[in-house]
Amino acid sequence: MRMLKLTVAYDGSVYVGWQRQADGTSIQGLIEEALARIEGQPVTVTGAGRTDAGVHALGQVASARVATTHSGETYVRALNAALPEDVRVRSVEEVPEAFHARFDARAKTYRYRILNGPVASPFEMRYAWHVTYPLDLDAMRTALAHCEGEHDFAAFQAAGSVVSGTVRTIHRATLDETTSGVDPATPMLTLTFTGDGFLRHMVRTLTGTLVEVARGRRPAGDLPRLLESRDRAQAGETAPPHGLFLVEVTY
Amino acid sequence: MRMLKLTVAYDGSVYVGWQRQADGTSIQGLIEEALARIEGQPVTVTGAGRTDAGVHALGQVASARVATTHSGETYVRALNAALPEDVRVRSVEEVPEAFHARFDARAKTYRYRILNGPVASPFEMRYAWHVTYPLDLDAMRTALAHCEGEHDFAAFQAAGSVVSGTVRTIHRATLDETTSGVDPATPMLTLTFTGDGFLRHMVRTLTGTLVEVARGRRPAGDLPRLLESRDRAQAGETAPPHGLFLVEVTY
Repeated sequence: MRMLKLTVAYDGSVYVGWQRQADGTSIQGLIEEALARIEGQPVTVTGAGRTDAGVHALGQVASARVATTHSGETYVRALNAALPEDVRVRSVEEVPEAFHARFDARAKTYRYRILNGPVASPFEMRYAWHVTYPLDLDAMRTALAHCEGEHDFAAFQAAGSVVSGTVRTIHRATLDETTSGVDPATPMLTLTFTGDGFLRHMVRTLTGTLVEVARGRRPAGDLPRLLESRDRAQAGETAPPHGLFLVEVTY
Repeated sequence: MRMLKLTVAYDGSVYVGWQRQADGTSIQGLIEEALARIEGQPVTVTGAGRTDAGVHALGQVASARVATTHSGETYVRALNAALPEDVRVRSVEEVPEAFHARFDARAKTYRYRILNGPVASPFEMRYAWHVTYPLDLDAMRTALAHCEGEHDFAAFQAAGSVVSGTVRTIHRATLDETTSGVDPATPMLTLTFTGDGFLRHMVRTLTGTLVEVARGRRPAGDLPRLLESRDRAQAGETAPPHGLFLVEVTY
């Protein structure tokens, strides 16, 4: 048996998320079906992290044990031929048999895109959160700096989550002013977070809270207090899933 | 009565094109319905140019005579509230009553986006032509330079077109290497054409021919010969509609 490392991009708009569910189509399920067709037998695919319904990925990583011995390029071609157009396998590499996409991940990068202005773009309705209120980006940057470092992020995880530890380290959190590529006249704010791990809804709740700061509804200095509170009820709203991208997983 | 100038962006993926048709939903029809709702009576909207099914616009311009006297911002808000998310009115200005979106247009800019590489991007499947063959961009630039200036573009219009004149001037034609905004690791080629007018399918047939040059299937020097031939059968294939954007109309 060989272990494969797949790097996958997907538009999450119409899927139930990365993980297989009782109902609906998942990215994991689609890739498992495509691999099973090549292998001639069922294959289990392990993702680096779950992405929720509507969340996108540029570089999700998955591992899979296979019996066939094709080249990476052949797997890429065969998988993409079997997958829908909104899921693309970018590369397939053979890795040591002990490789595990989730447990071996050292860092992940997520990006959240915000279109700030009175009129939305038809080309960004699936890929950015449209925020119509004026935003104070200096205040947002000040609040963002408080997110960096090792913190207990319990206040920023999905309500009702039960995980053993809620301490995570955000190595880097930045705010960039770019433009929508397809619609270059439309400005785009991108929040990029790199860290050793992220709780469920953590990036979306951080983003929702940062937008409340930028709208002037909370002081930028609220962030340390919120972290200390460990209370989800005190943090801001959860930003919608369609602005979020899993950009990269590093090993 | 007042004359309004509307600037409109739309994702053409699911529409029959700008112009009202017997069957299917057109952008013109959607805007006429939205304006009629504000006016309380039927309104005719005139576009600067027709865009075919699947073609997008960042800055289509339309004129409409109305009886109501709202501010531009109010029209923008009311129209966008009535329109589907993939059609957005960007601005509404009052203009002299004699203004005509089509006859008064002095120049138009179109962009054609090409994703050149082995694997497509899920985020560009509606907004760029995926070309898998390696492309020689120097050859493409040489051919592109031949497109500039005043020429008879009869060889580059849709087969079966009957128009009185086929001479047009392309003021500027450029090739830029950028990246997909939403998927920054994906390179994007953009062809941008500014001219005094364009025949039906002209940008798509020029693009199809330029790609044949860049693939090495024709010499770059073929362009002057094709223009002179005035024969559609000698030019290249028509590039697909979903890579094309009407960027701007100037008056």
